[in-house]
Amino acid sequence: MITNSSEQVNNREPLFIIKIGGNVIDDEKTLHSFLKDFSSIKEKKILVHGGGKIATAVGDKLGIQSKYIDGRRITDDETIDLVTMVYGGLVNKKIVAELHSLQCNAIGLSGADANVLPAKKRPVKTIDYGWVGDVNATAINASAWQLFIDNNLVPVVAPLTHDNEGHILNTNADTMAAVLSIALSKLYNVQLIYCFEKNGVLTNVDDEASVISELNVQNYNQLKNDKILFAGILPKIDNAFDAVNNGVHKVVIGNSDNLLQLAKGESGTKIIS
Amino acid sequence: MITNSSEQVNNREPLFIIKIGGNVIDDEKTLHSFLKDFSSIKEKKILVHGGGKIATAVGDKLGIQSKYIDGRRITDDETIDLVTMVYGGLVNKKIVAELHSLQCNAIGLSGADANVLPAKKRPVKTIDYGWVGDVNATAINASAWQLFIDNNLVPVVAPLTHDNEGHILNTNADTMAAVLSIALSKLYNVQLIYCFEKNGVLTNVDDEASVISELNVQNYNQLKNDKILFAGILPKIDNAFDAVNNGVHKVVIGNSDNLLQLAKGESGTKIIS
Repeated sequence: MITNSSEQVNNREPLFIIKIGGNVIDDEKTLHSFLKDFSSIKEKKILVHGGGKIATAVGDKLGIQSKYIDGRRITDDETIDLVTMVYGGLVNKKIVAELHSLQCNAIGLSGADANVLPAKKRPVKTIDYGWVGDVNATAINASAWQLFIDNNLVPVVAPLTHDNEGHILNTNADTMAAVLSIALSKLYNVQLIYCFEKNGVLTNVDDEASVISELNVQNYNQLKNDKILFAGILPKIDNAFDAVNNGVHKVVIGNSDNLLQLAKGESGTKIIS
Repeated sequence: MITNSSEQVNNREPLFIIKIGGNVIDDEKTLHSFLKDFSSIKEKKILVHGGGKIATAVGDKLGIQSKYIDGRRITDDETIDLVTMVYGGLVNKKIVAELHSLQCNAIGLSGADANVLPAKKRPVKTIDYGWVGDVNATAINASAWQLFIDNNLVPVVAPLTHDNEGHILNTNADTMAAVLSIALSKLYNVQLIYCFEKNGVLTNVDDEASVISELNVQNYNQLKNDKILFAGILPKIDNAFDAVNNGVHKVVIGNSDNLLQLAKGESGTKIIS
């Protein structure tokens, strides 16, 4: 067990919610090594995965052009079919099969399955993102998750939800992991770990040794004002603060290569409420 | 409730296991109409789906040639990725989303998820079918299914399994439905319904009115000897006999348009042990 007794702030059982993105998914060796570490975690656990470059590669072959506005994929009719295939089918089932080979009793889920992540289509304001979903955080049915987790199943969650009107919705995996962590904090002592290709939140993006070991909101605002933190990392940190400010016991951002160290609090950036 | 008390041969609860193939999946209107009927069945139920022509259409666009020997798809490396995407992702999640819009609490599963259908790669004898799985019928963990079914979830099963060594396997949906029905007959009063594009087993393939209402093994052998039954329908009937000879309460073969009549025993061909 990774969690020691001093970390048990209440009587709830520990639950790790671990999110991985493209850097893990796109490379077979990295994925295998990560899943080996993941499967060795003895505590209850959930894996949330993003999409990776595979969707773009398959889309290119199918003649589906990736469309982005402000770094966010626009999900038209053919793109939602593409990501449903790739995220919900190819990526999800490959991870599930590999986890079983590592004696980890994985079950692949999208937000649509058992309606575990109720969502709605993002309303059109200035930009029409298409078939994109925002999870209805307050409507998450924690007992549906409990059914799986307390029966020793390990959910592997694809970044897809549904609108309850028969449509699958493309959904941001970082946000999904944060709102799920918040909802499950009512039942478990949740530790949320965002894994990516950097060693943590860095003060110098080119120096992997420049990890900020702890980040509170004052430091964060200062670093944003000073333009030391910018662009791609900000939404992830915002999700992390959202989690830690809403009942999640611990949130860490770090390198997927160091999963077991991240879980022990020995690596990465700890987000402080 | 469709089942009346006279059909309750024991104290077990009724469970419908319903299999659909390409004729339902490939046409949006047919699928919607079928799912409406399916969702109206009040008893416990499981939907097993095949693949349909979508895999071939997507494969064509991706430059993946469909390869068949004796009518069976040969599943090479790129084909297993294709069917994992299409069956496990696109088809499965579309059905799940649509069922939720019909107030049916669907959960998409492949045989890999929660290891609900343990399988092994088909051994190479004269033909190497590639990444094709045969379900290990005696190893099916009925209590894993019970967890879902008894918690009011409706499993929607894609024709994929895994080899416990990290590989997804393409798996025949008709056989999957039969062995699952047999395994769950220990816990439930199972009725297996094979839905396809014909009104049942026909004595004249061109005459939808020529439905054989009841078929026992003597009639079946006679009809095969007389070449009245041949080719494509035979494996389905063999699966049906396998089910009814191994504890499944009732097996019916009929038209997906008549699901509710099939469930009541008012349509299709009833297989008699």
